[in-house]
Amino acid sequence: MAEHMDPEEFRRAGYAVVDWIADYWTTLGQRPVTSQDPPGTVAAALSAGPTAHGEPIEAVLADLDRVVTPGLTHWQHPGFFGYFPANTSGPSVLGDLVSAGLGVQGMLWATGPACTELETVMLDWLAELLDLPQRFRSTGRGGGVIQDSASSATLVALLVALHRASGGRWRETGVDRRYRAYTSTQGHSSIEKAARIAGLGSDGVRPVEVDPRTQAMRPEELRAAIEADRAAGVVPAIVVATVGTTSTTAIDPLPEIGAICAEYGIWLHVDAAYAGAAAVCPELRWTHDGLEHADSYCFDPHKWLLTGFDCDAFWVADAGELIEALTVLPEYLRNAASESGAVIDYRDWQVPLGRRFRALKLWFVLRWYGVEGLRAHIRSGVALADRFAERIEADDRFELTAAHPFSLVCFRLRAADEVSAELLRRVNATGRVHLTHTRVDGRYSLRLAVGSPLTTEKHVDEAWDLLAATATDVLTG
Amino acid sequence: MAEHMDPEEFRRAGYAVVDWIADYWTTLGQRPVTSQDPPGTVAAALSAGPTAHGEPIEAVLADLDRVVTPGLTHWQHPGFFGYFPANTSGPSVLGDLVSAGLGVQGMLWATGPACTELETVMLDWLAELLDLPQRFRSTGRGGGVIQDSASSATLVALLVALHRASGGRWRETGVDRRYRAYTSTQGHSSIEKAARIAGLGSDGVRPVEVDPRTQAMRPEELRAAIEADRAAGVVPAIVVATVGTTSTTAIDPLPEIGAICAEYGIWLHVDAAYAGAAAVCPELRWTHDGLEHADSYCFDPHKWLLTGFDCDAFWVADAGELIEALTVLPEYLRNAASESGAVIDYRDWQVPLGRRFRALKLWFVLRWYGVEGLRAHIRSGVALADRFAERIEADDRFELTAAHPFSLVCFRLRAADEVSAELLRRVNATGRVHLTHTRVDGRYSLRLAVGSPLTTEKHVDEAWDLLAATATDVLTG
Repeated sequence: MAEHMDPEEFRRAGYAVVDWIADYWTTLGQRPVTSQDPPGTVAAALSAGPTAHGEPIEAVLADLDRVVTPGLTHWQHPGFFGYFPANTSGPSVLGDLVSAGLGVQGMLWATGPACTELETVMLDWLAELLDLPQRFRSTGRGGGVIQDSASSATLVALLVALHRASGGRWRETGVDRRYRAYTSTQGHSSIEKAARIAGLGSDGVRPVEVDPRTQAMRPEELRAAIEADRAAGVVPAIVVATVGTTSTTAIDPLPEIGAICAEYGIWLHVDAAYAGAAAVCPELRWTHDGLEHADSYCFDPHKWLLTGFDCDAFWVADAGELIEALTVLPEYLRNAASESGAVIDYRDWQVPLGRRFRALKLWFVLRWYGVEGLRAHIRSGVALADRFAERIEADDRFELTAAHPFSLVCFRLRAADEVSAELLRRVNATGRVHLTHTRVDGRYSLRLAVGSPLTTEKHVDEAWDLLAATATDVLTG
Repeated sequence: MAEHMDPEEFRRAGYAVVDWIADYWTTLGQRPVTSQDPPGTVAAALSAGPTAHGEPIEAVLADLDRVVTPGLTHWQHPGFFGYFPANTSGPSVLGDLVSAGLGVQGMLWATGPACTELETVMLDWLAELLDLPQRFRSTGRGGGVIQDSASSATLVALLVALHRASGGRWRETGVDRRYRAYTSTQGHSSIEKAARIAGLGSDGVRPVEVDPRTQAMRPEELRAAIEADRAAGVVPAIVVATVGTTSTTAIDPLPEIGAICAEYGIWLHVDAAYAGAAAVCPELRWTHDGLEHADSYCFDPHKWLLTGFDCDAFWVADAGELIEALTVLPEYLRNAASESGAVIDYRDWQVPLGRRFRALKLWFVLRWYGVEGLRAHIRSGVALADRFAERIEADDRFELTAAHPFSLVCFRLRAADEVSAELLRRVNATGRVHLTHTRVDGRYSLRLAVGSPLTTEKHVDEAWDLLAATATDVLTG
């Protein structure tokens, strides 16, 4: 097998891998959601080094079954309710397969004109799908780009915000004074990480208190923090507001926050990583009220919109500022198209230089499902979460710990934190479901996030039955 | 099509996409390497927004042929000699397809034990394949991780270097004094970009002069720069040395640079993005002499080792320091495995939180080819470059402008820069080949980089014939 795989060998092996995936999806519901093997099990089952001579693909597929899949957490499993979903779909897998087969590297328009233009158009389609403010469309000064994750989108937003807050000096002289980023105490950990990466340090993030009832940022606390920092000589650079916090899917009040940002000239980035997808449904667009104030916005089609990881959709209202902040132009990347100013070079919109052709999977998903198909998927998730929440509310031993406008339900036993933690441990140990946890206003809560396209009423009901029965054991044991 | 694609529909559509790729590869050599269409052509051929109702995959594949592929730069084309290769292979595509089908998100060990462990083992396999220093193996304090690109590897190296140089304060207080990064004038543009992202600004990078003969960093210039900066109160944080610069594949003298870094306690990162793959061949391992001094090292299997973008392999000698620099732990990511300390959570080794199962494509490539298969690929690239360079040397109108230890040849016409630039423009306009350019010691040079698995002696000879004939036109026209 030391030879390259020729197209006919690829065709044969490709069919086999397609079959493998179809079979995996068919049998997925019967597998344990998570592996119960101890750390090191998978590594120990692999050979210590590469072999001198090649092997056929069949040998690799056999080891995939023997070693890899038994050692996985199955994110597409109908009983996977952990974290936020990272769902995918057949059309997404096929779009990604085309991308892999083309092997195009779209760092510049010139290195993949269709790669760049399809991405611009897909981000415009998504903006229309979510009814985002006009300022984010590529027809004006704004535009969208695919980032690998919301973490990277937040980092890029912070970098442009620093560029703006410094009056353009940041590019050359760096973090030459104290800048600060603001987010609620419920903001995602990637905000602190971005601040650290950008040279502000963890101290560069000021967590703003939330309303304990809603877990949403309190605008008056934001204003007070900004005022205090300005008085101390700190430059407020960015506010990261969240639509759908990771802990409980709380929604920060964008209209009030936007007004404060406008008043003080602070960049507003809105992180809707998980919940943004909900806006494909008109009845859920209220969750984006006030978004017209934002300088940048992102959501993850790879979370709840059936597009495989990685695919974060990130928009800015002023692309020129972004490019100015991040561009570096060595001789070996110069080309006539870039110099014409008529094209987008997406390398200047992100941290890495190189980029895959990720717009293809979005294109496949948007065309296969259509607007109505995507709405049906979101509505199904919301309905399943509502159904589960009704079970919780009907059982006096349990309580909801947060509102559930999307497909995440946070709940706990009306008992000590340790009892809920033990409940989680026991239900996860069955391998039939996988849930994760958080703390809401200091108290331990379980999280059940619906998202896999395979998840139906049956799976949610089974999860409830398992939780209810295990609760009996835990409460009486 | 508003419904989810079921496994049997996926099987059928999957075969069709596999066929599409096999056919694409079969006919690739007959296509123009690059599109000659003006900017906007692809975007104008796409519909303005998403449709209400879904469409079959066949409709998307038809538009792929109609709109997308004619608008591409074909990186896998046998006549693609631009930039550095970003080659891929059948086994890589299949490994990536399995990854897409599994849809696993391996941010934590707990969210994909096999995803994490296969990655650790693959990076150890690669370390063995390249005969990297023992300190990078996971059996000790070191270890490897897949980054999306060498740009991100450089950024991460810089961040840990800042953490170290600050005595650990950087995490909390950020860039609270002046730090500096050093690289040669030929260092990659991602180094300046990383410095900007990290808050040092472009001024935070000091370019060190190279020997004009070799284009390699002059150690005595590095030492002088460090001494001058220290005297001025600046803290030298990192030296980025390059094995195989982007412009000409120059090799910085690692033994001398390493000794200087050791003397001053400066982090040494070695960027071998393209050229590192050469070390699979024992006869080319001299290019890595001195690597034992490095604190971190990276190379891109996605450039010259048949693994599709994105796949940068990045190693550190001390993983503890890296994790300390980058970890942020919110409640919703806490889990028993992480707290045991017995597992790797790769989220702490990179900028984003989420991660795809990229180790699969490496595993497929390493097993399909075996060590000997990969060596044959590298040797073929080097031999083809040597063959092309002989043609250049045998024609008095041309001259080589740099040594060619790997698969890149830099050359020019013995005439004014504009004449070589016109030669490049004309050969690229034929659509039969694609070359790019650089400047070597100020003078315009063409670059011919071999890398596609489809490229054979025939294609290199055709490229030469085209260049020679066009040179006649350009020189007499």
